[in-house]
Amino acid sequence: MADTSPHSTAKKTSRRAFLDRVCKGMALSVVPFLPAVTSSSLHAQGSIEARLTAMGITLPPVPTPAANYVPYLTENGFAYIAGQLPFLDGEIVYPGKVPADVSIEQGQEAAKQCAINIIAALKGACEGDLNRVRRCMRLEGFVASNNGFNGQSAVVNGASNFIAEVFGEAGRHTRVAVGVNELPLNACIEVSAVFAID
Amino acid sequence: MADTSPHSTAKKTSRRAFLDRVCKGMALSVVPFLPAVTSSSLHAQGSIEARLTAMGITLPPVPTPAANYVPYLTENGFAYIAGQLPFLDGEIVYPGKVPADVSIEQGQEAAKQCAINIIAALKGACEGDLNRVRRCMRLEGFVASNNGFNGQSAVVNGASNFIAEVFGEAGRHTRVAVGVNELPLNACIEVSAVFAID
Amino acid sequence: MADTSPHSTAKKTSRRAFLDRVCKGMALSVVPFLPAVTSSSLHAQGSIEARLTAMGITLPPVPTPAANYVPYLTENGFAYIAGQLPFLDGEIVYPGKVPADVSIEQGQEAAKQCAINIIAALKGACEGDLNRVRRCMRLEGFVASNNGFNGQSAVVNGASNFIAEVFGEAGRHTRVAVGVNELPLNACIEVSAVFAID
Repeated sequence: MADTSPHSTAKKTSRRAFLDRVCKGMALSVVPFLPAVTSSSLHAQGSIEARLTAMGITLPPVPTPAANYVPYLTENGFAYIAGQLPFLDGEIVYPGKVPADVSIEQGQEAAKQCAINIIAALKGACEGDLNRVRRCMRLEGFVASNNGFNGQSAVVNGASNFIAEVFGEAGRHTRVAVGVNELPLNACIEVSAVFAID
Repeated sequence: MADTSPHSTAKKTSRRAFLDRVCKGMALSVVPFLPAVTSSSLHAQGSIEARLTAMGITLPPVPTPAANYVPYLTENGFAYIAGQLPFLDGEIVYPGKVPADVSIEQGQEAAKQCAINIIAALKGACEGDLNRVRRCMRLEGFVASNNGFNGQSAVVNGASNFIAEVFGEAGRHTRVAVGVNELPLNACIEVSAVFAID
Repeated sequence: MADTSPHSTAKKTSRRAFLDRVCKGMALSVVPFLPAVTSSSLHAQGSIEARLTAMGITLPPVPTPAANYVPYLTENGFAYIAGQLPFLDGEIVYPGKVPADVSIEQGQEAAKQCAINIIAALKGACEGDLNRVRRCMRLEGFVASNNGFNGQSAVVNGASNFIAEVFGEAGRHTRVAVGVNELPLNACIEVSAVFAID
């Protein structure tokens, strides 16, 4: 169902180039689980940021509150991250429903973009220091789905695998993955998160 | 898409009158963010209740458990509030889907009614003292949506703006807003919440 | 209410037979609330397991992580349980949507199976001792629904009533019940949970 042909987004070459660069040689659905990162390496100064850099990921700025809702809040050792849409440079990547408008692989890339935006918000929650992250407790992924599509788990893996790749053992999380008929701004996926932080 | 004409609910004049009174002159989608309420004023005895009264809001009684699920639970500084439907005087206001059956503006009023019911449950969680609320951590809004409708954020703003209006800075929250094809009792929206309380 | 006969699980008929036997004469939607279990009896060694046994329930093995997401995590007194599908012996029971493919009563049985799987994961979160459970804080039930179906609450009651039956007063929870158009693997329901544990 998912195709591997280039998706036709002619006008958005920079986004294409970005995604190609980020995803180069990386089949999101088959990323093996990384060796557990030891606690000491996890908490070494700058290690999460260094890993992101090594992965070719540049976090967007910590999002600023647009309204009466905010991108993150912390309380009692938990950081709540608002539901993130797959925004990249102000645009929703891969709008539509899976699989008619958006292939599973494209949905995975969109899921990964949600995860990148989650980490950007999380960085704000950690006052800039991602090494304060103890654990990703929960990801909730809502996949805009055509009737008859039941591959939501594969799509949300695009976020799950990325979070695990960045945070190692601390990135393995409980998850909810469901389909919905519509999402804000015609996004193909929305992902929210709860983290435990120091 | 939203209209401002009176909605035809002839039989339910008391509900109409209530909503008119509450919503008088208040375009929910453009309520500006209120100046942050200082911590001292937030915690002054009776201030949240006084604000509700000034806004013309009468909380319904704290809901009583109808079954094996309960309207609220508190633990470790968090109050979990069950998903609330837009009940008013025992009836679901604005049943149906947005936008075919329910306009965006009507959906916002329904969202506000969910938020009123959330606060009623929250009052129970706080043993009657809403000044114990530290923060609204999370609202999750599920909007019953016709296919092709992607304005869930605008609808859920009816709840978000109300919570922020009542609680000031403490009412600004992380949020999840998604569309679904059906909700219990044909409600157009369901909203759940997590608060941090003292 | 529950019977105590051992269930056999010799293929498909046995599953049907199992479900029929367990649910015999039990209208899930009208199960009365059980007398509250006293705290002392709740925490007596083995009492939850004993109750499960008396109910004829054998928990499946604690699920093992299949990927970068895990069945449970604990932090700061909370156990987060991943969204559970109604797996029984490796198969999804009652696939499809409610009510066209799956009756409400069958949906309730599927919801109960989700709850059984939640308890299996919870046992892992409690390192084998279910008596460490203080409270079920939240169940979130997503029901795969045909357009026009609004009985999600009745379906999710299959999980809610079971959790309350097993844990007594500690099993009464806040709840979110919504409809969705599609779920992973064509399941008719997915249920996630948060518990407070000692």
